[in-house]
Amino acid sequence: MMEEKEIIEKLLNGEMKLHEIEKYTENIKMSVDIRRKFAETVSNTNLDHLSKYSLSMEEALKRNIENPIGTVQIPVGIAGPLEVYGEHAKGDYYVPLATSEGALVASVNRGCSVIKSACGVTARIIDDKMTRAPVIKTESISEALKIKNWIKDNFSKLKNAAESTTRHGKLVKIDPVVVVGKYVYPRFIYTTGDSMGMNMVTIATETALKILTEETSAHVISLSGNLDVDKKPAAINMIEGRGKTISAEISIPRDIVEKKLKTTPEAIVEVNIAKNLVGSAIAGSMGFNAHYANMIGAIFLATGQDEAHIVEGSLGITLAEVINGDLYFSVTLPDVPIATFGGGTRLETAHECLDIMGVYGTGNVGKFAEIVSGTVLAGELSLLGALAAGHLARAHKDLGRG
Amino acid sequence: MMEEKEIIEKLLNGEMKLHEIEKYTENIKMSVDIRRKFAETVSNTNLDHLSKYSLSMEEALKRNIENPIGTVQIPVGIAGPLEVYGEHAKGDYYVPLATSEGALVASVNRGCSVIKSACGVTARIIDDKMTRAPVIKTESISEALKIKNWIKDNFSKLKNAAESTTRHGKLVKIDPVVVVGKYVYPRFIYTTGDSMGMNMVTIATETALKILTEETSAHVISLSGNLDVDKKPAAINMIEGRGKTISAEISIPRDIVEKKLKTTPEAIVEVNIAKNLVGSAIAGSMGFNAHYANMIGAIFLATGQDEAHIVEGSLGITLAEVINGDLYFSVTLPDVPIATFGGGTRLETAHECLDIMGVYGTGNVGKFAEIVSGTVLAGELSLLGALAAGHLARAHKDLGRG
Amino acid sequence: MMEEKEIIEKLLNGEMKLHEIEKYTENIKMSVDIRRKFAETVSNTNLDHLSKYSLSMEEALKRNIENPIGTVQIPVGIAGPLEVYGEHAKGDYYVPLATSEGALVASVNRGCSVIKSACGVTARIIDDKMTRAPVIKTESISEALKIKNWIKDNFSKLKNAAESTTRHGKLVKIDPVVVVGKYVYPRFIYTTGDSMGMNMVTIATETALKILTEETSAHVISLSGNLDVDKKPAAINMIEGRGKTISAEISIPRDIVEKKLKTTPEAIVEVNIAKNLVGSAIAGSMGFNAHYANMIGAIFLATGQDEAHIVEGSLGITLAEVINGDLYFSVTLPDVPIATFGGGTRLETAHECLDIMGVYGTGNVGKFAEIVSGTVLAGELSLLGALAAGHLARAHKDLGRG
Amino acid sequence: MMEEKEIIEKLLNGEMKLHEIEKYTENIKMSVDIRRKFAETVSNTNLDHLSKYSLSMEEALKRNIENPIGTVQIPVGIAGPLEVYGEHAKGDYYVPLATSEGALVASVNRGCSVIKSACGVTARIIDDKMTRAPVIKTESISEALKIKNWIKDNFSKLKNAAESTTRHGKLVKIDPVVVVGKYVYPRFIYTTGDSMGMNMVTIATETALKILTEETSAHVISLSGNLDVDKKPAAINMIEGRGKTISAEISIPRDIVEKKLKTTPEAIVEVNIAKNLVGSAIAGSMGFNAHYANMIGAIFLATGQDEAHIVEGSLGITLAEVINGDLYFSVTLPDVPIATFGGGTRLETAHECLDIMGVYGTGNVGKFAEIVSGTVLAGELSLLGALAAGHLARAHKDLGRG
Repeated sequence: MMEEKEIIEKLLNGEMKLHEIEKYTENIKMSVDIRRKFAETVSNTNLDHLSKYSLSMEEALKRNIENPIGTVQIPVGIAGPLEVYGEHAKGDYYVPLATSEGALVASVNRGCSVIKSACGVTARIIDDKMTRAPVIKTESISEALKIKNWIKDNFSKLKNAAESTTRHGKLVKIDPVVVVGKYVYPRFIYTTGDSMGMNMVTIATETALKILTEETSAHVISLSGNLDVDKKPAAINMIEGRGKTISAEISIPRDIVEKKLKTTPEAIVEVNIAKNLVGSAIAGSMGFNAHYANMIGAIFLATGQDEAHIVEGSLGITLAEVINGDLYFSVTLPDVPIATFGGGTRLETAHECLDIMGVYGTGNVGKFAEIVSGTVLAGELSLLGALAAGHLARAHKDLGRG
Repeated sequence: MMEEKEIIEKLLNGEMKLHEIEKYTENIKMSVDIRRKFAETVSNTNLDHLSKYSLSMEEALKRNIENPIGTVQIPVGIAGPLEVYGEHAKGDYYVPLATSEGALVASVNRGCSVIKSACGVTARIIDDKMTRAPVIKTESISEALKIKNWIKDNFSKLKNAAESTTRHGKLVKIDPVVVVGKYVYPRFIYTTGDSMGMNMVTIATETALKILTEETSAHVISLSGNLDVDKKPAAINMIEGRGKTISAEISIPRDIVEKKLKTTPEAIVEVNIAKNLVGSAIAGSMGFNAHYANMIGAIFLATGQDEAHIVEGSLGITLAEVINGDLYFSVTLPDVPIATFGGGTRLETAHECLDIMGVYGTGNVGKFAEIVSGTVLAGELSLLGALAAGHLARAHKDLGRG
Repeated sequence: MMEEKEIIEKLLNGEMKLHEIEKYTENIKMSVDIRRKFAETVSNTNLDHLSKYSLSMEEALKRNIENPIGTVQIPVGIAGPLEVYGEHAKGDYYVPLATSEGALVASVNRGCSVIKSACGVTARIIDDKMTRAPVIKTESISEALKIKNWIKDNFSKLKNAAESTTRHGKLVKIDPVVVVGKYVYPRFIYTTGDSMGMNMVTIATETALKILTEETSAHVISLSGNLDVDKKPAAINMIEGRGKTISAEISIPRDIVEKKLKTTPEAIVEVNIAKNLVGSAIAGSMGFNAHYANMIGAIFLATGQDEAHIVEGSLGITLAEVINGDLYFSVTLPDVPIATFGGGTRLETAHECLDIMGVYGTGNVGKFAEIVSGTVLAGELSLLGALAAGHLARAHKDLGRG
Repeated sequence: MMEEKEIIEKLLNGEMKLHEIEKYTENIKMSVDIRRKFAETVSNTNLDHLSKYSLSMEEALKRNIENPIGTVQIPVGIAGPLEVYGEHAKGDYYVPLATSEGALVASVNRGCSVIKSACGVTARIIDDKMTRAPVIKTESISEALKIKNWIKDNFSKLKNAAESTTRHGKLVKIDPVVVVGKYVYPRFIYTTGDSMGMNMVTIATETALKILTEETSAHVISLSGNLDVDKKPAAINMIEGRGKTISAEISIPRDIVEKKLKTTPEAIVEVNIAKNLVGSAIAGSMGFNAHYANMIGAIFLATGQDEAHIVEGSLGITLAEVINGDLYFSVTLPDVPIATFGGGTRLETAHECLDIMGVYGTGNVGKFAEIVSGTVLAGELSLLGALAAGHLARAHKDLGRG
C-alpha cells in the first residue's frame, strides 16, 4: 500500500493513472479520498461537499462508476398524492422528483392536485420491448438481399442463440431488416422481463450475430447500427416504440379547470393544437408535447435510471379535447426505458426513491411505468394550464431565476 | 409552530398540503425532515440516505426545489487529463462525470488518453444564442401576414421592450416568423451573456409581446409555441442552433489508433458512416452520432445543468476521415444550453464540480463549452473505437450488468 | 342533344355544370371540344395545342380524368442503352423520360454511358408492399389498448375480410398498431401482385374495418390516418418501405471515372458524404441523395404512374466508396409505388413508353422496377460526377435557362 | 446528311450515339422521327401516339429535352369556377389539371363548388425566395469558423458578385451558415423576380463562390450541399420556406358543409386532427395534410412546372376549426417553386394552360401562386370531407380502378 502523498505525486507527474489508485490503497474509501484530493490539488479548490456521501462506493465501483471522487447531491422534492388507476398501480402515490429547476416540483404537484379533484388518471402500458440493431456489411446488394432473407429463414436459430445468454430476455422478432446498398440493418426486438435490458440485448444480439457470421459471408461492422435507436431521438422509436410505451388520460370537469388552472378547457385545447401539434410540426420536432423531458428527467434522476435515456423519454404526443364542456387530456410516450432493479436503481438513494412509490425490485416495473405516465400527465397539464392562463413568465419571475 | 407529529397527521388526513409545511416549522431543515418522515410513513419505508446531504436546503428551496425531502447522491468520477485547445480553454482539464452507468467514465477516460497521446483536441464555439418563440393567433391569414410584417417593421421597438427587462440579454433578431393559417410563430433570438438564459428570454419576450398585443389585433396563445424549441428534439435546433453550438476535432496518428484503440482509422471511418450517418438516416434520427447524450448527461448532472436539456445535447454529427493514413475525427453539437452560474450550478456539489475545471461563475462559459466539446469527442471516439474493434458487448459483460 | 352554343351559354350563366356536358352531347369528343371552347371563351384565349391529342378520351374519361379539355404534351427523350442485371431485367434498355427540364435526359444518358463502360449495374427489389392505415377512435386509452389487442387476436378474420375483395391482394400483416391516447392507427400491409395497389388496399381495408366496427366499439375516423403514408414524405416509409423498395449498384474502374466523368472516385465519395449524407442530415431531409426525384419524375410521367407518388420516390440513400482505387456506387429507394398496367399506364403514350422497355402489362413490374433503379443510379452518378468536377453551373449556363 | 436507314444501323451497331442524330439530319422533326424509329426497332413496338405532337420540337430541344422521340399526352381536365381573393387574383378562375388519377379533377371541382357557395377563398403569398447552398471544405474547425465569419463580414462583396450575373436576382441574405466539423454550408437566399430562379441562383452563387475561394483557403466541394434543399423533402424548407410560401383560407357555413360535403364541421376537424396532425406526427411525415401533392402535381404538369418540385409542394399544414358552428379551414404550403415563364412553361400546351388562368408571362406569378393555393384548398377540403363522410373507398370502387 502506498501513502496518499506518494500516490498524488505520481498522479501529478504522470507515473500513475487515475484508474490505478485502487490498486495501491487499502480500501475504496481511501482511494476515493485520494483521487478527490488529487482533484483538489490540480484545481486548487475545495471539494468538501462531494465527499459527503452515504452510499457504498464499494458497491458503486462494481457497477456504476469508475474513477470516483464522491457524489453530487441533487435535491429531491415530492409531488402528490398522484391518483393513478392502471393495471398495476391503483390509488395514491407520492412521486420523488430530483431536479435543480425551480418550479418544476410545484408545477407537477399542482397537476396532481387537479388530478385528485378529477378522481385520478387512467394509465396503461401500450407496449414493452428493448431493441438492438447491428449494421452488417456484405459484398453487394444481391448478397445483402440474401442476408436479409437468411435472417428471416433462420429466425429460430438466431432466437435460440440470443436466448441462450439470458434467462429473462426473449427475442420476439427481427423487424425491420433494412437494406441500404451493401449494408443490412436487422432490428432485434426483445422482451426483457423486469429489467431495462440494454445490456441483456447487447450480449444476446452479439451471440446471435456469431451464428450469422459463421454461416454466411456477412461481416458485422458495428454491434449497433443506430437503428436501435439508443439515446438519440429517432422517428423509428416514435413509430415502433422502445422501452415502455405508456399512456395516461383524464377527464376534468370544466369547473375544476376553471378553478384550479384559472383557464378553460377550450384554451388548453387551443394551446395544445397551436403549440404541441402545429408548432412542433413546423419545427421538425419529435416532441409533440410541452415538456415531457422535465418530468421524465426528474423521475429518472430520483430513481437511478440512465440519464441519457431522458432523450428518448422526451418523445410523445399530448392530446386535448373538449367533451361535453369538460377537458379530456392524454399523454402518450412511445419510448421510456426504465427499470426497478439493476443499473443505477441499486444506488441507495435511488432505491429509497423507488421505495417511496413501493416499486423497488423485480415485479414492479409495470406499476412504476404507470406512475411515470401519470406524473408526466400531471406536469404537462399544469404547464399547458399555465400557458393558457398566461402565467408562465410570472412563475419564472417570482423565482427570480436567471 | 406545530409539532412534527401533528403536521404529519394533518398531511395524512389531507388538512395540510405538502407545500404548506414550511409555514409551520421553525426552519427549513425541520420541514424537510418532517416531509421526509411523512413520506416514510405513507410508504412504510426508511429514507435515511436521502437525509444525508450537506448542501444548504434553505438556498435550494429559494431557487431549485419545492417540497424537498432530501437529496439523491449520484456518483461522480473524473476523466482526464483532457487536453483541449480552444479560444478559452488551453491545456489539461479533469472532467467530473456524474452517472450510474458503469463503463462510461472509463470510456471517456480512455478517449482522454488517446487525445493526450495525439497532443490534444481543438475546440471552438461556433454560435451562441437563446430563443423563445411564442404562438400568436390572428383573425385570418391576411391578418397573420400583416402581423409578420409588423414584427419586421417594428423590430427596434420590440428590441427595446425586450431588453428593458435584462442587463445582459440582447435581442439579436426575430427569425424566422412562420405563418401557418391564422397562427404566427416569431422566433426571438437573444444573446444572453454568461447565463443559460431560458428565464431571461422568457421574461424579455413576454414584455415585447405586450407591445405587440397593445398595438395590433394579435392574440398571444402561448408564450412558447414550440418553435423555440426547448427540451424537445427538433430539426430547427439542428439547423439554426440553440444554446452553445460547439465543435471539437483531432487528428490521431495511425499508430496511436492501432495501439490505444486496437483498431484502424479505416474501421472507425466505416463505423461512422454505416452507423452514425447511414443508420441514423434510415432511423429518422437527429443524432448522427453514437452517444453524445451519455457525455452530455454526465457533465450536466455533475455541474448542475438542467437535466431536460440533455435532450438537446443529444443532437449532432460525428465525422471521421482518413487523411494520409491518420484518423481525422470531429464532433459537432448544435444545441448545448449550459451555464457556469445561476440555476442548478449554485448547488454546492455542482459548484465544486465546475471548480474542478476552473469554470465556476461569470466569464467562464466559453471555456466550459470548449471542455464539454472535448469531453464529448473523447467519449465518442472511445465508443466508436470499441465498436470498430468489436469490444462493446465484452465491456458490458465484464461489468455483468443487467 | 344540345347545340354547342347553347351549352356554352348555359355554362357561362351557371345553368349547367362543367361535368354535365357529357349528358348533352353525342360523343365524348364533342363534349371535350365544347368544354375547351368554353375555357377559351372565359379566358379569351386559344387552346389549339390542347386539342391535338391522339389518345382515346372515351377511355380516359372512364378511368383517368373528369371534365377533360384535351391533353398536355410533355417531351419525351430516351436515354440508353442502360445495361442492367437484375433478377428480371437482363441486358440493355432504352429508358423514356418525360420532362421539360433541359439537361436531365443528357445527364441520365451520360450516366448510362458510364454504366455501359463499366459493364452494367446490378439491380434488386428488396421489398414489395402496399399499405393503408386508418385511424380509429375509441372511448379511452384502455379501450384503445383493447382494440390494439383485438386486431392482433383477430388477424385471420380481418385478413379473410380484406382478401374477399380482391383476387391479387394479400394482407400480410397489420404492423405497427400505434396507439396515441384514444386513437388507434393500424397499418395494413398487403402484397398486391402486379398492380400498384392503392385502390385495391383501400377497398380491402374498408371491408376489414367493417368487421372491426361490428365486433368492437371502435369508430373509424378516417380510412387513412396518414400512417400509410401516401403521397407525403414520411420516416415510416423510409424505415419500413412502401411500393417497391429497390436498389442498384455498380463498381466503376478509376480510369472510366476519370475519363468519362472528369473527376476521381475520391471526389465523388467526398461529394456524397458532404452533400448527400451530412448536408441532408443538417437540413432534416429524408432525401439522402442528390436528385432521385428528377429521374423518378421523368419515368413516372413517361409511363403513366401517379405523379403525386414522385414525392415518395424522392426518398432514399446514395452510397459511394473507393474500393481498390475504383468507385463503388449504389442507390437505394425504399418507396417507389409503380405499376405496369392499370391507372395511367393504359394511356396510349404511357403504354408505348412501357413498351419501349418491354414492360407493359402484368408480369413485368419486377423488370420495370429494376430498370427504374438503374436509371436512378445513372442520373445520380452523372450529377454527382458533375458536381465533383465543378460542372453544374456551366451546364445550366449553356442551356441559358432562367 | 445521312439516310434514316443508315443512321438507325449505326445506332444499332453503336457507331453513332443517340444524341448525335441531329448532326446528320436536315431538321429536328426528322431526327426525332429517326430516333423514335430506332426505339421502335430495338423494342419491336409501335410508337405512333408518341409521334402525334403539335408542339415545336425545335424549341423544346433548345431548352427542355434531349434525345427526343416525341411527347406523352396527359389528359387535362378543368375544375372551377374557383373563387379566389388574393392580393393579385380576384374572382373566378378555371384551373387546368393534368392527371391520370381518376376522381382527382372531380374532387377538386367539388371543392370549388363548396368554395363558391361560401363566397370564395382568401389567398396570400407569405414569402418568396429561392436558395442555393454549397458545401465548402476547410482545413479545420477553426478555419471553418473563420470562413463562417468571413462570409458574414463580406456579404456586400458576395452580393455584388452574385448579382452581377443576373438582372432580376437579388441576394437577400446568407443564412444560416452551418458549420459541421470542417465543412461550411452557407445558404444563399435570393429573390428572383418572376422566375422560378433555380438556374439563376445556381449561376449567381457560383460566381460569389469564386470571390470566396480566391480570397480565402476555402475549397468548394459541391455547388449544392443539400441545404438548399432542392427536390427533396426537408425540414429546413418547412421552417424557412422556399419558392412561394402560400396560404389560403375559408369560412364555410355549417349548412353548406352538411349539404355539399354530407358531413359536419366537427367531423372534418376531427379527421384533420387525427389524420393530418397526429397521424403525420407519428409517421414522421412533413406533410401534415391529406394530399397536397395531388393538386400540386396536377397543376404542375398542366402548366409546365418542374415535376420533381412536386416533392417540395407536398409539404405543408392543414388547419380546421369550428367557429360559431361553421367550419374554418386553411392550407399552408411553405415550399412551392413555380413560374409563369421560362423552363417548361414555354411548351405550347403549358402556355395554353397558363392562359386559361390568365397568368402566362412575367408579372403574373403572384396571381398564379394564389390560384394554386386556392386549388390546393379545394382538393384538400373535398378529400377531408369525403373521409369524414366515409366516402373514400366508395369513390374508388365506382371508378373500379386497380
